[in-house]
Amino acid sequence: MPASVPREASQLAAGLFAGDRRALARAITLAETGGRAARELIGEIFAHTGRAHVIGVTGAPGVGKSTLVDRLAMEYRRAGKSVGIVAVDPSSPFTGGAVLGDRIRMYLGASDPEVFIRSLASRGHLGGLSVATDDVVRLMDAAGLEVVIVETVGAGQSEVEVMEVAHSTTVVLAPGLGDDIQAIKAGILEIGDVFVVNKADRDGADRTAMELEVMLDLGGERPWRPPVLKVVAREGQGVAEVTAAIGAHAEYLRSSGRWSDLERRRAASKVREVVTARVSLEVFESRRFGTDRLVEQVANREIDPYSAADEILRAYRAGGPDHQRAGGEEG
Amino acid sequence: MPASVPREASQLAAGLFAGDRRALARAITLAETGGRAARELIGEIFAHTGRAHVIGVTGAPGVGKSTLVDRLAMEYRRAGKSVGIVAVDPSSPFTGGAVLGDRIRMYLGASDPEVFIRSLASRGHLGGLSVATDDVVRLMDAAGLEVVIVETVGAGQSEVEVMEVAHSTTVVLAPGLGDDIQAIKAGILEIGDVFVVNKADRDGADRTAMELEVMLDLGGERPWRPPVLKVVAREGQGVAEVTAAIGAHAEYLRSSGRWSDLERRRAASKVREVVTARVSLEVFESRRFGTDRLVEQVANREIDPYSAADEILRAYRAGGPDHQRAGGEEG
Repeated sequence: MPASVPREASQLAAGLFAGDRRALARAITLAETGGRAARELIGEIFAHTGRAHVIGVTGAPGVGKSTLVDRLAMEYRRAGKSVGIVAVDPSSPFTGGAVLGDRIRMYLGASDPEVFIRSLASRGHLGGLSVATDDVVRLMDAAGLEVVIVETVGAGQSEVEVMEVAHSTTVVLAPGLGDDIQAIKAGILEIGDVFVVNKADRDGADRTAMELEVMLDLGGERPWRPPVLKVVAREGQGVAEVTAAIGAHAEYLRSSGRWSDLERRRAASKVREVVTARVSLEVFESRRFGTDRLVEQVANREIDPYSAADEILRAYRAGGPDHQRAGGEEG
Repeated sequence: MPASVPREASQLAAGLFAGDRRALARAITLAETGGRAARELIGEIFAHTGRAHVIGVTGAPGVGKSTLVDRLAMEYRRAGKSVGIVAVDPSSPFTGGAVLGDRIRMYLGASDPEVFIRSLASRGHLGGLSVATDDVVRLMDAAGLEVVIVETVGAGQSEVEVMEVAHSTTVVLAPGLGDDIQAIKAGILEIGDVFVVNKADRDGADRTAMELEVMLDLGGERPWRPPVLKVVAREGQGVAEVTAAIGAHAEYLRSSGRWSDLERRRAASKVREVVTARVSLEVFESRRFGTDRLVEQVANREIDPYSAADEILRAYRAGGPDHQRAGGEEG
């Protein structure tokens, strides 16, 4: 924790701990923006995190993720739990996930202070979307939200990174999504702790569920075999079974010691991302270390990119006394 | 270029320049593996790159990208040009793109030495898929392949990064891919130089093309307004128009000076990726700089990740005389 925390971060943290939702909203905006104040805010709240159960929900466009997330939130509210929702859309670096976030808001009432929804754009944050997602989840956690649902599209590399914040990942599928379903499934099998076949009232739902079961069985014996659940999210059908399965998964994580493993992995990937983002920023924004000249030489094929990187890092590590200052300026 | 290039890299480079396709295949395998030999190989060939026209082809699963790529390759062969194809599948970090690559091979004859196909897995390469893609494209370029087509699934963050190697990006769509098409389109509008509506003999193709035209018109006046072309790739229909449009785009890039801008941007992003990947490797694999201890402290919430990153980078920059050695060992 920094020795002196500026007034803004300290006030926001206090408001957040006191359950003030406006403080949480402002804290998230600050975290998204990045910079020194954001870092200090995270430093301030970090020790107070670790209570929330973080649930990831992912799946291809059109499977009905948002509807399911809405229903899951309602189910948790019924059980008396407060819920945070973070809608992340890495598939759209340009529009920044607004579509996803807005769609959720149409379903859930905006009046319940125990449901807090936020959509995340991919622009801006140092270290990219997964660093920003981690910060936002930590803030919701510190604010006392008991369940935090992170919703993201697809199962690409960036989605897998985003999902590293989750304790329990729910993969959503729907019947009839074309010939590439096998390929898509192959990519998601390893990341799912609970599988949901949504739109289970449609043709082909049984087959999709059956195929999933077969593919999961190929994985052999293991301590947690992900269940496959058929759901009609639009009508709330089967949603209680999903929260039950997610709850059972949390039980398994805690009793097996896997929960702490996940915390350690999440910490490692976050630290790694912050380290590389900071080096990238220092090396490429500061215009020191000869970076511009070397990039120009690479573009002109006078030097190869690996030798250029060598030279930049040599200069970076020999950076002299002013590097401490440069390192402290950004997020 | 390194002062002394080991025999393997030097021999491979010589074979590659001489048009030996087996040397190219082995060079690509070496580049994928990474490490010192790979770096030296790239150093050896780098000055001989820059002649190929690099074409990106992207689109959601099921739109028929592979069929289109196959037809494009045939069309270029008809015009007497040699073709390289790199099939990249970032959406599957686990299966590593084998599906995509194999599918292409079913269409194209394996006998033509002027068509060289390679699929790229996401695992292994230091710096990830976009660094590996850049290296493989450079190798094909240095080997004298005149057109290099990079095919990738979707338009997520990692795909956009992969596409940074391309001079001309072709975005493929197909009619009837569900309600989320608007959201998907919003993400791809900015990256496409040429738009292809494939399966144009199906219902809805005209509407998809029309919607695209409208959305592109919203972008306002600009020097290159991407054309929208209707194609039935399975039958080769409209494919010549696509290669013509791609050729016109290359013309535009060269006459406007944008070609050099792209080269500079590609160089900058490659150098950035190599720099950050190397720091990540040195900091997290070497187990120096206190990394393990600090990650453990973050997992236990004794320190926040930003402060941990500060401490690691301070140690990294004060790394002492042995850091040069550590920096030289990896890819």
